[in-house]
Amino acid sequence: MKTGNKPLILVTNDDGVYAPGIRALYESVRSLGRAVIVAPEQDKSAVSHSLTMSRPLRVRRLESDVYTLDGTPTDCVIIGMNKILERRPDLIVSGINPGANLGDDISYSGTVSAAIEGTMYGIQSLAFSLGGEAPFDFTVAAGVAWKLASMALEFGLPETTLLNVNVPGLPAGEIQGIRFTRQGRRIYHDAIQETFDPWGRKHYWIGGGTVHWSGGDNTDEQALREGWISVTPIQLDLTNHAGLDYLKRNWKM
Amino acid sequence: MKTGNKPLILVTNDDGVYAPGIRALYESVRSLGRAVIVAPEQDKSAVSHSLTMSRPLRVRRLESDVYTLDGTPTDCVIIGMNKILERRPDLIVSGINPGANLGDDISYSGTVSAAIEGTMYGIQSLAFSLGGEAPFDFTVAAGVAWKLASMALEFGLPETTLLNVNVPGLPAGEIQGIRFTRQGRRIYHDAIQETFDPWGRKHYWIGGGTVHWSGGDNTDEQALREGWISVTPIQLDLTNHAGLDYLKRNWKM
Repeated sequence: MKTGNKPLILVTNDDGVYAPGIRALYESVRSLGRAVIVAPEQDKSAVSHSLTMSRPLRVRRLESDVYTLDGTPTDCVIIGMNKILERRPDLIVSGINPGANLGDDISYSGTVSAAIEGTMYGIQSLAFSLGGEAPFDFTVAAGVAWKLASMALEFGLPETTLLNVNVPGLPAGEIQGIRFTRQGRRIYHDAIQETFDPWGRKHYWIGGGTVHWSGGDNTDEQALREGWISVTPIQLDLTNHAGLDYLKRNWKM
Repeated sequence: MKTGNKPLILVTNDDGVYAPGIRALYESVRSLGRAVIVAPEQDKSAVSHSLTMSRPLRVRRLESDVYTLDGTPTDCVIIGMNKILERRPDLIVSGINPGANLGDDISYSGTVSAAIEGTMYGIQSLAFSLGGEAPFDFTVAAGVAWKLASMALEFGLPETTLLNVNVPGLPAGEIQGIRFTRQGRRIYHDAIQETFDPWGRKHYWIGGGTVHWSGGDNTDEQALREGWISVTPIQLDLTNHAGLDYLKRNWKM
């Protein structure tokens, strides 16, 4: 695949190659260079940073720059980087996810995890999600993705850091602008529904319920709630460095 | 389930309820209080922080304090906390994983993700892994788990922080002691094997290869390589706070 000097952009997601969100993202970043989609065949929401190692993966080419494989978003980045693209991409973009990815919950997200994997390879990576509820209109979010992708190419990201971008599910005229934020804290998570199979055995279905957030200024969740586009820099290093000092001082072994 | 005033300890893993590592962990922490296993039915290695929301989960009770469900380690923590245990546990322990979980690679780990989920619930959580290669002898690591679990109960962990513990695959006499470490950086990841299906179609299998690590003192990887037990405090907040300042200063919107 010849790309010349134009930026090469890998596009992926967790909702699968046929999702409207990835098509909107692909169309928006194509004007910045050459965009290539490598995305899962099926919906892989909430697979987090799962990696498929127990079986081989099959790549299929659907269009000249659109590939799919029977794996996770992380698999798509690994196989895309190593086996599909001719050279290292200049940018990886993931999304656009229908539904926000905020606070602690980003840890479950396949959309964000694809950008984490890209960052591990040293590629500037951005994850895009659209808040609100179905039916989703990706027009505004695609414009935001274009703007932030072009800024990443121009100004660069902090080292070993990706951007987690959430766009409010509002008409363009009601969006306040872009705010750089920190990751919020979820107070508690989901309801669990009890359900029964045809043989009367109880099952538990995780989901539903209302998420609550802890206070604190300038979180991703607060920004979105107030009508701002939230841009959170997320790092690979998970070490609690202050906690490391605490343990060295206080845990006498 | 009555537990009285004894500490209540939830035990889980990603290798499944029948794995020898979880049994060794369960036996070791039972002396600290009441231990209850809630673990996946099947091997769920490398599922990261995956959450099952697309179908209901079925719990089966195998022994009086041993439960299994057809889901991920994260599912086990959620269902264990909300539907199996009578009260909030005092501690969650995950493992013992056969094979180390170091550096950036902890992001793929189901073992570590179970401890992340526990930490999200505000429960002190520890993940245990044993380095080296099969056949694994969990005896030394189980003793380490007992010691660190008892210290967590006595001294507490820093807020919203879990411990990622790796024990070298060495005889007890060759282990140097315990070192508090930071998460290392992987330079690059895996080889990808090309293989063909019975119809001659190429597939890619992720795995194998040699992992390389970047230099730097006091990483988890360095500690293990030098024969130390590595204890890394891992936090929930993924925000790059320095990067946030950088973006506010340098990205002119």
